[in-house]
Amino acid sequence: MKISLTSGRSISVAPETSILKALEEEGIFLTSSCGGKGTCGKCKIIIRAGSVNVHSTLKLTQDEVKKGYNLACQSFPLEDVVVEVPKESMLIVEGKIALGTSRDLQALLNSTAVKIEPLTERIVLQLPPPSLNDNISDLERLKRELFSKGLGCLRIPFRFLTNIANTVRKKHWEITLCIIHSEDCYEIINIFSGNKKAPRYGIAIDIGTTTLVVYLIDLTDGNLVDVASTYNSQIRFGDDVITRIVYAAEHKGLSSLNKAVITDINILISLLRKNHHIDIDSIDQIVAAGNTTMTHLFLGLDPSAIREEPYIPTANNFPLSFAGELGIKVNPNVPIYSFPCVASYVGGDIVAGVLASRLHKKEELCLFLDIGTNGEVVLGNSEWLMAVACSAGPCFEGSGIKHGMRATEGAIEDVKINPSTFDPEIKVIGGTKPIGICGSGMIDLIAEMFTSGILDQKGRLQKGISDRVREGEGGLEFVLYSGNNIDIVITEPDIENIIRAKSAIYAGLSILLKEAGFTFDNVNKVYIAGGFGKFLDIEKAIILGMLPDIPREKFEYMGNTSVRGAYLCALSKKMREEAEEIAKKMTYLELSVSRSFMDEYVSGLFIPHTNIEAFPSVKRLMK
Amino acid sequence: MKISLTSGRSISVAPETSILKALEEEGIFLTSSCGGKGTCGKCKIIIRAGSVNVHSTLKLTQDEVKKGYNLACQSFPLEDVVVEVPKESMLIVEGKIALGTSRDLQALLNSTAVKIEPLTERIVLQLPPPSLNDNISDLERLKRELFSKGLGCLRIPFRFLTNIANTVRKKHWEITLCIIHSEDCYEIINIFSGNKKAPRYGIAIDIGTTTLVVYLIDLTDGNLVDVASTYNSQIRFGDDVITRIVYAAEHKGLSSLNKAVITDINILISLLRKNHHIDIDSIDQIVAAGNTTMTHLFLGLDPSAIREEPYIPTANNFPLSFAGELGIKVNPNVPIYSFPCVASYVGGDIVAGVLASRLHKKEELCLFLDIGTNGEVVLGNSEWLMAVACSAGPCFEGSGIKHGMRATEGAIEDVKINPSTFDPEIKVIGGTKPIGICGSGMIDLIAEMFTSGILDQKGRLQKGISDRVREGEGGLEFVLYSGNNIDIVITEPDIENIIRAKSAIYAGLSILLKEAGFTFDNVNKVYIAGGFGKFLDIEKAIILGMLPDIPREKFEYMGNTSVRGAYLCALSKKMREEAEEIAKKMTYLELSVSRSFMDEYVSGLFIPHTNIEAFPSVKRLMK
Repeated sequence: MKISLTSGRSISVAPETSILKALEEEGIFLTSSCGGKGTCGKCKIIIRAGSVNVHSTLKLTQDEVKKGYNLACQSFPLEDVVVEVPKESMLIVEGKIALGTSRDLQALLNSTAVKIEPLTERIVLQLPPPSLNDNISDLERLKRELFSKGLGCLRIPFRFLTNIANTVRKKHWEITLCIIHSEDCYEIINIFSGNKKAPRYGIAIDIGTTTLVVYLIDLTDGNLVDVASTYNSQIRFGDDVITRIVYAAEHKGLSSLNKAVITDINILISLLRKNHHIDIDSIDQIVAAGNTTMTHLFLGLDPSAIREEPYIPTANNFPLSFAGELGIKVNPNVPIYSFPCVASYVGGDIVAGVLASRLHKKEELCLFLDIGTNGEVVLGNSEWLMAVACSAGPCFEGSGIKHGMRATEGAIEDVKINPSTFDPEIKVIGGTKPIGICGSGMIDLIAEMFTSGILDQKGRLQKGISDRVREGEGGLEFVLYSGNNIDIVITEPDIENIIRAKSAIYAGLSILLKEAGFTFDNVNKVYIAGGFGKFLDIEKAIILGMLPDIPREKFEYMGNTSVRGAYLCALSKKMREEAEEIAKKMTYLELSVSRSFMDEYVSGLFIPHTNIEAFPSVKRLMK
Repeated sequence: MKISLTSGRSISVAPETSILKALEEEGIFLTSSCGGKGTCGKCKIIIRAGSVNVHSTLKLTQDEVKKGYNLACQSFPLEDVVVEVPKESMLIVEGKIALGTSRDLQALLNSTAVKIEPLTERIVLQLPPPSLNDNISDLERLKRELFSKGLGCLRIPFRFLTNIANTVRKKHWEITLCIIHSEDCYEIINIFSGNKKAPRYGIAIDIGTTTLVVYLIDLTDGNLVDVASTYNSQIRFGDDVITRIVYAAEHKGLSSLNKAVITDINILISLLRKNHHIDIDSIDQIVAAGNTTMTHLFLGLDPSAIREEPYIPTANNFPLSFAGELGIKVNPNVPIYSFPCVASYVGGDIVAGVLASRLHKKEELCLFLDIGTNGEVVLGNSEWLMAVACSAGPCFEGSGIKHGMRATEGAIEDVKINPSTFDPEIKVIGGTKPIGICGSGMIDLIAEMFTSGILDQKGRLQKGISDRVREGEGGLEFVLYSGNNIDIVITEPDIENIIRAKSAIYAGLSILLKEAGFTFDNVNKVYIAGGFGKFLDIEKAIILGMLPDIPREKFEYMGNTSVRGAYLCALSKKMREEAEEIAKKMTYLELSVSRSFMDEYVSGLFIPHTNIEAFPSVKRLMK
């Protein structure tokens, strides 16, 4: 059978294969935060001709069903079909936003005043060809040349011998070595024929529980070439780290989880390589940052002991691994640096975040807050660092929210509601028609709905206040946008999710300060990280009760600091050393047994908070 | 279809599969020096019932065909068959001869006055179990324990992280580390649960062009547990190193050659493990010695440049490799030490041989002579070493000789001929009925036939002198033994082969001395190595003209010195260091362009030699 896409391409499909899977096999990737379980409702397609066996339409509205929408993962062709893939369902590589980000990143790199010193180095050697009078072996010839260049201490792993005879002879005895500094010696990690000094690229990865972000970096000048991101398809095995650890403990679960994230990363790297015509041998290194569990699953390490008292990871500091060992589809000898972790629930993403925020270099007391699937908070300065973790859930990354999406093109990122008409004014990433709401849009929306009276303090929609508040399939919902063949709404369950998440974050911030013996007033700066896109409206986040009501200039929104930290470490040895120091210095405070955390969390399930006195500016606004 | 063996077992066979292959797949290995090409005639079987499609009987006598003999590699069952495998066709593991050899080897090891220090070391650690107050990661716990034992500098390759969580918890936090000293640091190469300090075994391998020999060594006390040997099944791709290099250069040839030798080694190791009930994790290391080409093929390195001027190997010194990298079926982390080579045509087998002979420690001038498929000669003392190589061919190992076989049970190793009756008196290894002739038997036989007048100086059989000289299928032949359902003969082509081989060896000896400015009289000692079995009759070898006519007490026959050297290096770090020194010190003299070598070789195609004055004792005997 055949699937003809309205965009022109035609692919074959085996019987009992979902359209999602058939497209994936041909390298066409749709957005799918649940990994094909039919529960996220994001891989929408329209069947234009032919009949399909549909397993479920639960995640579609009646209106969508009427319009011919189906989920690609739930649709199994019974004959040749014609399929339209709407733009919002396509996996996006964000080439467009790279330029500005690249300038920011290079500025950040320059601010640290380090020289560019990637994990690997490339050396070009012109070997003298052998003769009867100079008939030492190829390996000795290579070593002699390196010795004459002062690189006497050099480990050459056995695997490089296999092809060395061919490699040295291919381009008239000119070769390029890729080497790495390991302990007190250099180690050869790759050998190429001819001069392959440039181009050289590095990959930086943020392995989020919900979202994966991959940077393609030019290692010669630090330029960010492009960015790609997708949902972590481990989501099909569970939304949070705990359910995934439980799944890993089951039969072969670890291998499925590992395969899922490695496949996602391979897809993103291959898309980036294709878009920029990058030769596989030009990729020289990979740096990855993720929380402790994500790092374990990425490296194929058993995370079981992480969730059982006394909560022990296999490792917090990871030896270098190689692409071939992990199944990452670049040259198998490419080294992979995994960020050091602090403890079972404060991982490499937080170390990377602190590194990118430079908190560990500040003299005054600062907070660092990373809002991902888990919320983590770090308090400290150049002298000490203390961290807590609080489970926020994946809603700000668009997962578990009806029209939620990541902060990519088509996402509503900014909302204003006219308090008289209740009509929203929206801003969409990329200036296109909207296809969903990202984290910053959600915060704006809830805050605006609250201040305009559409929502009460408990997060309930006010029925009858406007036509936009209507009875939806799962209860009351607010219509944010109509048009483009689809209504974009926020539902009461969505709102509940968001309130739970913001409350967990605020509770984490409060408890950490309390435990360390400080108050919000002692804090000089609050660095905020998260996948909210280009900006986060601090004012609105305070109204929501997610952030403390302190002077606005103390806040700085930094975006995805995990991948920014990975970027820094891809380019600088000094940064890798700082990362190791941060991990070593940070103390972890376990909240799971903290009674006061639970109290604080419950108090926060209100907008902005049960204790309105803690939010004086919101109190004034409410009056 | 089914093959029922008269010995009792019954195995199934797929259509168009030879009996040889079907037996191999079930772990029943027959002798086959050609690897199944139908040209060595060694995998004889008798079809007792059922019909088979026979591809060739060229290598069988009419008599054998009459008696129901077939070659297993040329027989393809057409229905269920009953097959008898004669004893001489079975691949033999030489458990019986190990005891004496073991005493010799331990005496050799003791004579070097070194302590037992294998490549690897095992350390048992009892880790303190983690608690909420001591919640560092598994890896840090391990490192802390090692640090407290003074093993601070330790590399832990990434691959050990994968299973560490499981391993440390399996036996109440008791683990055994297998470590190796590499550069200035220790490196973990294996981790086991519980106390696995003993038993520990090592494998020493001689990778000959024609024959493979494997020693199983108890690493705790240096005891040789057992020996196994077989033909190198690379023979199917060519008899000598040059044809194999040519074959390797062809499409995928390298991989076939590599696979052949690795499969052979796997068979031998698995037979040894099975016979001695050895757990796979008790094998700790492998040491292999072979000539430069054999070492390249064993390691999967392209040998092409070895045969083209200026004759360059990939390497002469090889980094450690691991069993998993080479496909050797023991624990994949087992390290493999490959003997250093000297040049393209003087390899690790010769370095191992010099090491075992201790020539490099003698003050007076000595010769070392290794008679394998290639003949190599080393001249020197503790000050200097000089080597040449001369192609002898595989006849002394039984290949290319009608009834030739390796020196294993059933081989005629000693022959005396009654000068009046021309009746031979034979001695058979193991005291069984004879099934073939090994190298020492051939030398005896030719010398005895020559002195008794059956053979002239040119190596021609004297027709009519005895009924034992008869017209065979390929010309004249001498019947050495009749009975056991089969005649064991030596043919004129066999004799020509042997004369060419002995002449190459004598020419090598002569030229090396000449080039170094010495004569045979200056030589204090001649160490002889080769797969001749337990002994070599020096007197007969001199009559043949293979060895120089000097005082008999100067000769010492040492057997297979390559595997003896490998045995020493499996047990001692000092010996490995000496091996490296020998390789470094030895100078190689290229004979392929030497005119005087060719002259000397041609002069030697006579018994004992064209220049009879060089063999005064033989001259006296002829009178």
